[in-house]
Amino acid sequence: MVAEKIWDDVKKIRLQAPLVHNITNYVVMNSTANALLAIGAAPVMAHSREEVEEMVGLASALVLNIGTLSSSWIEAMLIAGRAAKSRGIPTILDPVGAGATSLRTNAAHKILKEVRPVIIRGNGSEIYALARAEGVTRGVDSTMGAEGAQEAARELSVERTCTVSVSGETDIIIRDKHTIKIRNGHPMMARVTGLGCTASALTGAFAAVNPDPLEAAAHAMALLGIAGEIAAQNADGPGSLQQNLLDVLYTIDKNQIDDHLQCESNVS
Amino acid sequence: MVAEKIWDDVKKIRLQAPLVHNITNYVVMNSTANALLAIGAAPVMAHSREEVEEMVGLASALVLNIGTLSSSWIEAMLIAGRAAKSRGIPTILDPVGAGATSLRTNAAHKILKEVRPVIIRGNGSEIYALARAEGVTRGVDSTMGAEGAQEAARELSVERTCTVSVSGETDIIIRDKHTIKIRNGHPMMARVTGLGCTASALTGAFAAVNPDPLEAAAHAMALLGIAGEIAAQNADGPGSLQQNLLDVLYTIDKNQIDDHLQCESNVS
Amino acid sequence: MVAEKIWDDVKKIRLQAPLVHNITNYVVMNSTANALLAIGAAPVMAHSREEVEEMVGLASALVLNIGTLSSSWIEAMLIAGRAAKSRGIPTILDPVGAGATSLRTNAAHKILKEVRPVIIRGNGSEIYALARAEGVTRGVDSTMGAEGAQEAARELSVERTCTVSVSGETDIIIRDKHTIKIRNGHPMMARVTGLGCTASALTGAFAAVNPDPLEAAAHAMALLGIAGEIAAQNADGPGSLQQNLLDVLYTIDKNQIDDHLQCESNVS
Repeated sequence: MVAEKIWDDVKKIRLQAPLVHNITNYVVMNSTANALLAIGAAPVMAHSREEVEEMVGLASALVLNIGTLSSSWIEAMLIAGRAAKSRGIPTILDPVGAGATSLRTNAAHKILKEVRPVIIRGNGSEIYALARAEGVTRGVDSTMGAEGAQEAARELSVERTCTVSVSGETDIIIRDKHTIKIRNGHPMMARVTGLGCTASALTGAFAAVNPDPLEAAAHAMALLGIAGEIAAQNADGPGSLQQNLLDVLYTIDKNQIDDHLQCESNVS
Repeated sequence: MVAEKIWDDVKKIRLQAPLVHNITNYVVMNSTANALLAIGAAPVMAHSREEVEEMVGLASALVLNIGTLSSSWIEAMLIAGRAAKSRGIPTILDPVGAGATSLRTNAAHKILKEVRPVIIRGNGSEIYALARAEGVTRGVDSTMGAEGAQEAARELSVERTCTVSVSGETDIIIRDKHTIKIRNGHPMMARVTGLGCTASALTGAFAAVNPDPLEAAAHAMALLGIAGEIAAQNADGPGSLQQNLLDVLYTIDKNQIDDHLQCESNVS
Repeated sequence: MVAEKIWDDVKKIRLQAPLVHNITNYVVMNSTANALLAIGAAPVMAHSREEVEEMVGLASALVLNIGTLSSSWIEAMLIAGRAAKSRGIPTILDPVGAGATSLRTNAAHKILKEVRPVIIRGNGSEIYALARAEGVTRGVDSTMGAEGAQEAARELSVERTCTVSVSGETDIIIRDKHTIKIRNGHPMMARVTGLGCTASALTGAFAAVNPDPLEAAAHAMALLGIAGEIAAQNADGPGSLQQNLLDVLYTIDKNQIDDHLQCESNVS
């Protein structure tokens, strides 16, 4: 993975302003919409069964995020996901809190089965819980680094024929035998709510412009990690980090990506 | 329209702290409440059928915003809107995403018919879709400037006997033969989610203290545009713009309004 | 109450990162999650009847906040509250808007009766309305200072055998014959939406690490007031105040608490 290709995607997002349809949790609706706008995409949030199919018809990617879930939202996610599949636009699943409650674990499995997302993006605990049907997620935070979930992620990737993107101190993106590790980001990012959800939303924007899900997922994680690093340089705490992050997503350029990118790719 | 009269309204809002009842979308609840507090109004968000009528009974204006809509919310909006009409307090409709899905277009028409809002405040695509029953809104973003929707706005104003406030690079506020154009604002404002919704919420605050809907709508758009311009002067991106905007709404004074206001009024 | 003991609790929160389960209103979900993360706790928001019991099983405290209420949420709050009671973890009730509508007043009473929260944290109007079954809350803002509600708070404390924490220019925390008054905070804090809700969320974090509800409630109010004071020193308005507040919650140390704390305790 090279900086040049990440930058190509950023340019495409800024030029095309792809519409990213999010069915996501209440906590992050505002912050993920702002992140998508800052990078240059066009977010729309819509969750009603009566309109999701129509809204998906306008979108270039669909992001399903199961935080603050309830039954009627699962139904809407399935309707939207099937519409996305039939239109051939990419669906990204963020299994927030999978492993913490059976409502969330079961909803994630149902979406995996019926919608077949091209990318699953979660933290170590969530990915582990989906792959192994065990392990406990503590609320919505991970008790496991991405590396602890690496083999589980690979199993999930093979079983579901999709890309699995695991966030952590090191982000790990896996498809079949391909592994990309990204060592960008900053510890203070874990003190801002919903940056994992932001990663998923940005993954939707990248998948809207890049037809290769492995690349799209890795580019999104690298971009967010790099932007977070730059944002943290002038941050006095998580409040200013969050604000700086939006500013950096809006202004980031090729040189900054070049200077900060730390990644490695392997095929086993 | 003169700066003096905008300032009169701002002083009244700060003095009276009118309660503005918002039934609005999940994405902007926090940011619009903060904008209302910053300008000096008192926001309340309440959407349950069981309490909206009672809450409207305490309020000085009602803002109905159809982003992230679902059926039970439409019902609550109609109950609240009828209560506002019977109490004689102004209702403002923001038809977010009208034209993008039939759920939203139909809900907006139903509210127009049954509630008779004194002000409709939307972007060009939304206003066009409501007036002409055609055109497509791309998600919640406009594909049409306010000027492209000017004649549609006039038709809507005449048909619904209300003021129509269209946001865009130039904001256009229309009632019958009256036209006010405002050329304030900053392009970066489009990269902060929900500033259109903020415009509608502020319109509610102005309508609560100014009985002339044309003036109230125009003053709100001018104030927000001016505050956005000032906020952008020291902004490094949309993150700092959003924060600065709240600071400016809180501190804005008569001189700043005087210095920045760019508008023209016509009667055809 | 001494600074040393507040600081002990802050250290425990940072070390233990207690999971605080919030069933709260849409307006503040993001901002209260960020405040909890900034102080070092782990927030989770979950409201579905199907999962709240399971989620409470992972948590160290439960915060019930009745802003933006609807019927299905009341039911979820009762299920979660009963689970918290049976597990022996503390429940905090924030009766947002009690007294403004009967839906909210009745829901608060039902929660008081069936869940028996260890701490009720509200503004003067809300506490008065719950104790006296009269008075009118204007939307979600108080029309009464904490001191006007002091005797009502004491009655409520005795009647419900709980700690009552009333926010205002002076915060008053009462349990039976104990009274703690805290004179920290800054007037501009009232111009940021949901800082009352943030107070309740932080109270949950303190109650998770301190078994004495009177202390936990008072420490949370003091900490937030002090952080708000410090945040206001460099704030140009409510936008920067909110950002600074998160930064200060993240960085606050023993000396700052020592320097700013203004409180008095009495036993009558």
